[in-house]
Amino acid sequence: MSKRIPRVVIVGGGFGGLHAARALAHAPVEVTLIDRHNYHLFQPLLYQVATATLSPANIARPIRQVLRRQANADVLLAEVEAVDTEARAVVLDSGERVDYDFLVLAAGAVDQYFGHSQWEAIAPGLKTIDDATEIRRRFLLAFEAAEQEDDPEIRRALLTFVVVGGGPTGVEMAGAFAEIAHHTLTHEFRRVNPSAARVLLIEGGPRLLSTYAEVLSERAKRQLEELGVQIWLDSRVTGIEVGAVRVGEERIGAYNVVWAAGVAASPLGRALGSAVDRMGRVQVEPDLSVPGHPEIFVVGDLAAIAGPEAGGPPLPGVAQVAIQSGRAAGRNIVRTLRGQPRERFRYHDKGSMATIGRARAIAQIGRVQLSGFIAWLTWLFVHIFFLIGYRNRLAVMREWAWSYLTWQRGARLITGEVRPANVLRRLGLAGAGATAERGAEEPERKEATAR
Amino acid sequence: MSKRIPRVVIVGGGFGGLHAARALAHAPVEVTLIDRHNYHLFQPLLYQVATATLSPANIARPIRQVLRRQANADVLLAEVEAVDTEARAVVLDSGERVDYDFLVLAAGAVDQYFGHSQWEAIAPGLKTIDDATEIRRRFLLAFEAAEQEDDPEIRRALLTFVVVGGGPTGVEMAGAFAEIAHHTLTHEFRRVNPSAARVLLIEGGPRLLSTYAEVLSERAKRQLEELGVQIWLDSRVTGIEVGAVRVGEERIGAYNVVWAAGVAASPLGRALGSAVDRMGRVQVEPDLSVPGHPEIFVVGDLAAIAGPEAGGPPLPGVAQVAIQSGRAAGRNIVRTLRGQPRERFRYHDKGSMATIGRARAIAQIGRVQLSGFIAWLTWLFVHIFFLIGYRNRLAVMREWAWSYLTWQRGARLITGEVRPANVLRRLGLAGAGATAERGAEEPERKEATAR
Repeated sequence: MSKRIPRVVIVGGGFGGLHAARALAHAPVEVTLIDRHNYHLFQPLLYQVATATLSPANIARPIRQVLRRQANADVLLAEVEAVDTEARAVVLDSGERVDYDFLVLAAGAVDQYFGHSQWEAIAPGLKTIDDATEIRRRFLLAFEAAEQEDDPEIRRALLTFVVVGGGPTGVEMAGAFAEIAHHTLTHEFRRVNPSAARVLLIEGGPRLLSTYAEVLSERAKRQLEELGVQIWLDSRVTGIEVGAVRVGEERIGAYNVVWAAGVAASPLGRALGSAVDRMGRVQVEPDLSVPGHPEIFVVGDLAAIAGPEAGGPPLPGVAQVAIQSGRAAGRNIVRTLRGQPRERFRYHDKGSMATIGRARAIAQIGRVQLSGFIAWLTWLFVHIFFLIGYRNRLAVMREWAWSYLTWQRGARLITGEVRPANVLRRLGLAGAGATAERGAEEPERKEATAR
Repeated sequence: MSKRIPRVVIVGGGFGGLHAARALAHAPVEVTLIDRHNYHLFQPLLYQVATATLSPANIARPIRQVLRRQANADVLLAEVEAVDTEARAVVLDSGERVDYDFLVLAAGAVDQYFGHSQWEAIAPGLKTIDDATEIRRRFLLAFEAAEQEDDPEIRRALLTFVVVGGGPTGVEMAGAFAEIAHHTLTHEFRRVNPSAARVLLIEGGPRLLSTYAEVLSERAKRQLEELGVQIWLDSRVTGIEVGAVRVGEERIGAYNVVWAAGVAASPLGRALGSAVDRMGRVQVEPDLSVPGHPEIFVVGDLAAIAGPEAGGPPLPGVAQVAIQSGRAAGRNIVRTLRGQPRERFRYHDKGSMATIGRARAIAQIGRVQLSGFIAWLTWLFVHIFFLIGYRNRLAVMREWAWSYLTWQRGARLITGEVRPANVLRRLGLAGAGATAERGAEEPERKEATAR
């Protein structure tokens, strides 16, 4: 290492990247954190934006603001396209290069459609704030469209909401959808009855929440059913088209489909040229570095970090793994600079939990299994506690208290392009191919004729 | 009138339309309120969304929710394209028709570019939530772009913010921009100094806030100057292009231009076929009905309602005029149904006010003129009081208290398409014509490579 100050480049401002940066706060390095968004997102609560409880600003905070007091950290709004491991530089999509002495890759995961990328436009996943507001928009528009629709079959399909994937995100989305339809929207429509809406949760495996204990899967299922969610287990989605989902041979009319069935690591993992697993995650050494490249660390959802059982599955893509591995990578950089040996990463499982609607949840903390109201309280306090920023904690508590007491949702806004030539068309649902053609069909009109 | 229940169609869910609907709550009519958005927007606070203090959900509420307890009211999400006054029906953009016995037109105003509609894409106005989040996006992106820009001239243009129009919206925007640049963003950037940003307010007339007393115009000017805003009076914008504004012969390098220079009535006013004034506002009778059409009322910004001075200007396009005229139209419908004579509309001026930055304002209430902190307190209480919905009042108070105490802004999110190939390009600013071509240049990519 030369005498100039070493530069650490961190790619990604999620849990992993941000905690890596913080672990380097007092180190004699220059940190550059690169993200394509200007905000850190508290992803565990993103489904609450999609389901109209929270506003985007409640669960996101500018990365610059989080790091403003860390004098050695710099933030760059840019997208990383490649890593030149020979020259030790990341390549931005503008073509610019940023040199590094150490690199921490924390680029996270993307939705995975298992070779059916055409499903993405019809069945969005839930990864970014824009995904969340888009899901919220489609969900709320469906009721408006149903209110105006005369054809009973289309009306029924408009009020059918399908969530694909029974992991935590799918369970949380399905529970919240059922609750809005059956409680929040009642009495607001004159022709349709929102409580007649059907929420269907489709899971390929034999049980929901497969990473949890079996008893909790069963409890989650029962709690969802009490909310009116229909659950199909051992069911594979074989097709998604505008207005319908195919499950095996069966065709279900549904204009709203949310994808929560799988994620893959960011393509940046493969771009590294090192060994990746089936999900594209980079296989890392016990110190979280990449084999043959002690100067490159991979953390969070992008890394395949060996789990506690030899030969067992790698650690799951949850916030705690990202936080702890990000921090560990930062610390190992500090140790290297000090000439100390690196530490093996050890994950401390603090438990995992998922909410089911308004006051229910399941939680698994070590050997303790909780469900129902007590699990929900635990979930609530843990999430408030880990939310970054005092202001957001207050805001989220207030929104939750409000929606708990009143059954109302604070953020039921349909934003984005709303040009009501025909509400169905607004959903991108006027017929096959409508989504792709919409831009061309409807030139931008900005005048409000009915405000 | 036949024996069936008369149907009142209200076009627009702003202040005018909503108050007309409420005035009909106990009348023996069926009310259908049509709006192209699902929410009622508290427009006086929209600039606070554009300047990152409030979230959209803080100042908007679903119209259905507002009217949920009004059993005779129905809400239709649609855009009205025309009025068939012969057949007594409004025509939706889907081609569908909605018959009425009484019609209340409350479709409001749109931005007016005085024949330069090509300026709209470069210099957006502030009418909808999407306008506000777009202005916020461009404003925040400009600092990110400047941080990465090497050319000092472009950097200077990126940090130059021009507000065109010195009415209340222009004054409020300019004050808030100056405050964010000079206080909120300090210490967050490493290369650029946000407090070097230049905020320029351009007004065509000889003074700001021309509808207020002269002494208040002068105080507003002084308060803005204290915040660091440069004010050019008697200055006409002669050209707006990507990266520059022309004022007379002078060219000012600026990538961020906000249009607050003028509004015109919704085109629906002209579509009525009745007499309109220069701004497209429908000239109404003293009872707010359209000459020759006692069954059609026009209220709010869309109406040219005679002011207190004979031959003087019509009432201004402010919230109070919309609220009071909407209510009066509703009451006149009730009186007509009861066989009572209609009432002449009389406007009660409750005063007007504008904020200037964080703790300053000007207010004119009858003959009382206030400025500075006391005016700001008045502004604050009036706005909290008139904000619809208890939940929003609490939320807005909290956000204001927070940003007052910390200088921080709660909603500094850059949302919408962010594909950082080049930050300049993201602003739609890579060169002339970039805005129009962007869609074609950058196909949609959804994978996050840096989260």
